[in-house]
Amino acid sequence: MHRYRSHTCAQLRKSDVGNSVRLSGWVHRVRDHGGLLFIDLRDHYGLTQIVADPDSPAFKIAETVRGEWVIRVDGEVKARLPETVNPNLPTGEIEIFAREIEVLSAAKELPLPVFGEPEYPEDIRLKYRFLDLRRDTLHRNIMARTRIIAEMRKRMGEVGFTEFSTPILTASSPEGARDFLVPSRIHPGNFYALPQAPQQYKQLIMVSGFDRYFQIAPCFRDEDPRADRLPGEFYQLDLEMSFVEQDDVLSTMEPVLRNVFETFAAGKPVTQKFRRIPYDEAMRTYGTDKPDLRNPIEMQAVSDHFRDSGFKVFANILANDAKAEIWAIPAKTGGSRAFCDRMNSWAQSEGQPGLGYIFWRKEGDWLEGAGPIAKNIGEERTEAIRLQLGLADGDAAFFVAGDPKKFVAFAGAARTRAGEELNLVDRDRFELCWIVDFPFFEWNEEEKRVDFGHNPFSMPQGGIDALKGEDPLSIKAFQYDMVCNGFEIASGGIRNHLPETMVKAFEIVGLDRKTVEERFGGLYRAFQYGAPPHGGMAAGIDRIVMLLVGAKNLREVTMFPMNQQAYDLLMNAPSEATAQQLRELSLRVAVAKKEG
Amino acid sequence: MHRYRSHTCAQLRKSDVGNSVRLSGWVHRVRDHGGLLFIDLRDHYGLTQIVADPDSPAFKIAETVRGEWVIRVDGEVKARLPETVNPNLPTGEIEIFAREIEVLSAAKELPLPVFGEPEYPEDIRLKYRFLDLRRDTLHRNIMARTRIIAEMRKRMGEVGFTEFSTPILTASSPEGARDFLVPSRIHPGNFYALPQAPQQYKQLIMVSGFDRYFQIAPCFRDEDPRADRLPGEFYQLDLEMSFVEQDDVLSTMEPVLRNVFETFAAGKPVTQKFRRIPYDEAMRTYGTDKPDLRNPIEMQAVSDHFRDSGFKVFANILANDAKAEIWAIPAKTGGSRAFCDRMNSWAQSEGQPGLGYIFWRKEGDWLEGAGPIAKNIGEERTEAIRLQLGLADGDAAFFVAGDPKKFVAFAGAARTRAGEELNLVDRDRFELCWIVDFPFFEWNEEEKRVDFGHNPFSMPQGGIDALKGEDPLSIKAFQYDMVCNGFEIASGGIRNHLPETMVKAFEIVGLDRKTVEERFGGLYRAFQYGAPPHGGMAAGIDRIVMLLVGAKNLREVTMFPMNQQAYDLLMNAPSEATAQQLRELSLRVAVAKKEG
Repeated sequence: MHRYRSHTCAQLRKSDVGNSVRLSGWVHRVRDHGGLLFIDLRDHYGLTQIVADPDSPAFKIAETVRGEWVIRVDGEVKARLPETVNPNLPTGEIEIFAREIEVLSAAKELPLPVFGEPEYPEDIRLKYRFLDLRRDTLHRNIMARTRIIAEMRKRMGEVGFTEFSTPILTASSPEGARDFLVPSRIHPGNFYALPQAPQQYKQLIMVSGFDRYFQIAPCFRDEDPRADRLPGEFYQLDLEMSFVEQDDVLSTMEPVLRNVFETFAAGKPVTQKFRRIPYDEAMRTYGTDKPDLRNPIEMQAVSDHFRDSGFKVFANILANDAKAEIWAIPAKTGGSRAFCDRMNSWAQSEGQPGLGYIFWRKEGDWLEGAGPIAKNIGEERTEAIRLQLGLADGDAAFFVAGDPKKFVAFAGAARTRAGEELNLVDRDRFELCWIVDFPFFEWNEEEKRVDFGHNPFSMPQGGIDALKGEDPLSIKAFQYDMVCNGFEIASGGIRNHLPETMVKAFEIVGLDRKTVEERFGGLYRAFQYGAPPHGGMAAGIDRIVMLLVGAKNLREVTMFPMNQQAYDLLMNAPSEATAQQLRELSLRVAVAKKEG
Repeated sequence: MHRYRSHTCAQLRKSDVGNSVRLSGWVHRVRDHGGLLFIDLRDHYGLTQIVADPDSPAFKIAETVRGEWVIRVDGEVKARLPETVNPNLPTGEIEIFAREIEVLSAAKELPLPVFGEPEYPEDIRLKYRFLDLRRDTLHRNIMARTRIIAEMRKRMGEVGFTEFSTPILTASSPEGARDFLVPSRIHPGNFYALPQAPQQYKQLIMVSGFDRYFQIAPCFRDEDPRADRLPGEFYQLDLEMSFVEQDDVLSTMEPVLRNVFETFAAGKPVTQKFRRIPYDEAMRTYGTDKPDLRNPIEMQAVSDHFRDSGFKVFANILANDAKAEIWAIPAKTGGSRAFCDRMNSWAQSEGQPGLGYIFWRKEGDWLEGAGPIAKNIGEERTEAIRLQLGLADGDAAFFVAGDPKKFVAFAGAARTRAGEELNLVDRDRFELCWIVDFPFFEWNEEEKRVDFGHNPFSMPQGGIDALKGEDPLSIKAFQYDMVCNGFEIASGGIRNHLPETMVKAFEIVGLDRKTVEERFGGLYRAFQYGAPPHGGMAAGIDRIVMLLVGAKNLREVTMFPMNQQAYDLLMNAPSEATAQQLRELSLRVAVAKKEG
């Protein structure tokens, strides 16, 4: 017989009754029932009940074992009595009568329990991560994560992508967030950087003549602690394709990600055909480029109903500013003064002057629009608004007014708030869509200049002609996001593979050819020697896993996360370097030493 | 029709003749044959011949295109004349008569050619890696690498392993080589380290209750440039299993790696059942723990034949040192004075006094042992040596004498030399074996103390009792290597999961409990809370790929390697950090600025 086990703790069934078996695992729980000791033995695969009766030679040792000890048990499989069968456990029809128990590894008193799912301070959980990871939920999340990634790999392979690793010690890339630097010992005073994303490398792979690349890519950003981001490293499903247009990337990746979602959605519906919503439309309809489409509320412009109306606040706003609009947020079932007042108070708490509304209620045969706005604009306009929004008895509409650029974020938040408060959001589904046609440039108000909207490597729609002839702020990019339930889960674009178009685009944001050559030398050089049209995207794996397993916290889907202060409590990192290490790296630490 | 292609450059066959098609790719070669222009169009998948005749509207553009331009071609598929069919090309039966050509991206004059396989200076090749990667050999090597890794993943999944990523920003681990450090901005004066291997994390995964882990793991070592190692990062197939003994790891991984080899061996035979050779036996028989078993030479001790013999040099060595031995290196077909003298000269060039030999030749009916040694020890002893070694007419034997510890490396080199010079090595096969029972400790002659032989985390054979009772230098470890054709391609061990045994082992090399707690805190702490017996190994992916594709250089199997000076010529890394970056990291560079 094997030294440690003949079966895992999930394998034995009624058909094994009478057999001699050997199991190894962790003591999940010990119970004493009238002299008999019951041990729930746990391993990676499952749980099996061990029984030690006082006559058994194993009893003496069984009495000593405690939670999380690792033991080996030899014994006989017996059928449980019908009344003690546990239908929730695959091994619930049997139990093992122990003949011999060997302690493979004892455990000290536990700093946090593994049995059950109690709330525990995060720092304890991270310091003793090896205990926390034994808990059922976290163990299952981590296994789901690895399966989701394996599924991504499989599906990418099926549609013709091959996986390549790109370097982790690479060049500092000043495009986005802050780099982690790695001092070079051999080149004193010089530093490698960890990649924020393999963006330049994947484009170089295309220029190198490979056709469809993907990678489960570790990415590194030295960002300040944020609740919704793990410090340090995160993973992306990164991909790139040659000889493609935007539609090729979207129609290749939509089934891949839909299938991944369907495989792990546990029966929840997943969008079959992803809508492609232009950025401008998303902003107008949902007030955000990451709309939660489970929320059925769609905003509409209702400016004309307020123009020259009796509601002077809005009428004046429209009269005084040609860019001003009035947007309505229709809220079905929101038609009570209590709810409308709650929304108004919430708006004030968000720093807004308030949130105007109309709500409709049946008065006899007549649908009356109630509230101050309705009073001011009169019945006819109120009814026209109701008809435009398709509202009925018991519904409400909220209104925001001014320059849409300035109020759109608030309008989007109000839409979200109304949908959630009124329970209009169907939480048990995955609603996916594409957002397309992002603006290529945006106005940097702080520095009073034009800046790149998203990815400077994207191809502007209309190409170099648009860059030369059109208002930069009107140019769209072949740039797209995939959004699920209000979260951006992927982002990509068709790249600008033409060096002169690249130089022109950077010129518009105030960077000259020399700067492009310096900052993106590898890529810029590559584009001089035959670059194929190409494009791709990157999907955030951590976020997708969180959505699929329903986790609220990135640390619930990551094996060994750091804490929010970017400190690894398990391994005690970061830590001081030795004097010799610093000398070898030609570095001095320029920080006041702590006293003591 | 698709904007760029209806087919790849490898797809069209005789059955497509008459169809209108669209292809995109790189201009591999242009030839002018009596006014007709022939363009070999290349993409990731293959090559297709394009024809532009002077009557075609595409001709004018065809005349302008040069090597490595990216073009789109519309045209009609035509059958080639029988005499121009190219049987070496999957598309060799057809050609495309171009109707329209669009230049998608022009190329400047090439710094190195893509067509053909010329020798080129490495620095040029690395700077223009995107061109070098288009060359057939390198392109195929990189594709083979990704397929080999995919195959490893598939086979690991089939035998029940799941893949987990371990952190890349982690703690400095003073166990082996030099760490790359990453300064922390949030914790000034502190540093993360990049993992030299996920050793501690994979053991923590086992303690966390996962059963079979693997990872295609990036590993980082800041080593001085060496011809047989890439600077910076390399990849391992890393794995660990719980509740196992040595035999479980070996018998699980042997079929996995054998199958990977068989899949990519291109028909070369692969060892079916790997011998398990104890370290001591490997050293005695092959003079190395990385024996090339394609070399049939097996060394034997022949001391007794020389004891008190007329060959005084050896007789005296044996008489004066109880540890002294004489080893024979039998060399079939090496029986000529010319060869024996060449071996002797080679030994001298290696700093040895010489290399004694006997060679046998037929003199009438008699096999005569020739050479000075044979003369000195006489016919009878010469014949006894011949019989022991199983040699015949035309064979030779070489002899090394002294303390085997001191001569073993040279003896192994002489064995290799003889086997290769005599063409005894069958190069067209993969000979795999396990080396087992490595010594747990070794004598550090420099520091005059006992040190760990290999991995301090391995379990000593005999456990804590052996550590307490036996001569440390006699203790073996559950530690093993996999060797292929003379290269160590994997290494592993059964781990020491018992904290007290761990403390005792470190005590023997002079490190106390406190040091263990400080250096390996995470692991040491984990072992206090129920650790399963576990073990595993790590296989060097770069080396395996090199063996399988027959590459001589690691840069031939790596997409974007640095040069030997750890410099990335493509991306220009490492480079100087900005003053702001250094300030944010609380660092000062302590190196004299270069003048100029």
